[in-house]
Amino acid sequence: MQINHLAIVVEQLDDALKFWRDALGLELTATEENPEENVNIGFLKIGESSIELLEPTNKESGIGKYLASKGPGMHHICLEVDDIRAAMDRLRDHNIEFINDEPKTREDGIKYCFIHPKSAFGVLVELYELP
Amino acid sequence: MQINHLAIVVEQLDDALKFWRDALGLELTATEENPEENVNIGFLKIGESSIELLEPTNKESGIGKYLASKGPGMHHICLEVDDIRAAMDRLRDHNIEFINDEPKTREDGIKYCFIHPKSAFGVLVELYELP
Repeated sequence: MQINHLAIVVEQLDDALKFWRDALGLELTATEENPEENVNIGFLKIGESSIELLEPTNKESGIGKYLASKGPGMHHICLEVDDIRAAMDRLRDHNIEFINDEPKTREDGIKYCFIHPKSAFGVLVELYELP
Repeated sequence: MQINHLAIVVEQLDDALKFWRDALGLELTATEENPEENVNIGFLKIGESSIELLEPTNKESGIGKYLASKGPGMHHICLEVDDIRAAMDRLRDHNIEFINDEPKTREDGIKYCFIHPKSAFGVLVELYELP
């Protein structure tokens, strides 16, 4: 298991890149407009992991509401597992609850789910299985 | 550069270990009582990084106050650099401010500093230089 990414909510992607890319020196590997989730995303490589900067594109989206209520900051941590169904079964055996009970599949083939923060002591944890 | 650790504030270390160690299956590599910072720490290995669970041992400490005001959750991210003074100089050139202007050195030889969250768009970022 390894950290796939740490997701950080920001007000303005361009501003945040002045810190993460320009000042800190991380490589911006990609940017993505995600109209379904109403976010623009900047991907920065750091070792075997990445930092994903999430800029909401409207105030009604999940990330937009999060920004309005909690301000900018760390949003969730994503852990990479070999077999997401096996991982979810193991977690269920320990009474862990999920936001989505079945793994979802993204266009790029990544399977993912979110563990409910109440089961992870206040942390929003995502699981990824790479294709 | 890589993620050295992600620090997470918890109310009770033993409870949080039921999720991170028992349910998720991460290896608990060490626990530490840190009376100076008034925290008990659990270190869990994940790939090249670790997750550090911070349990405050009193309410007046920095972590104790954080828990009381914000609740449990992600506290800071620590990035490993080769040369902390060179990294700090580079960051200063970009007008980044620090909580401690000079790197501090721990008993185990690790040099560290904290970047001020206002310079990192709401994220508390620590830098580590390993001995």
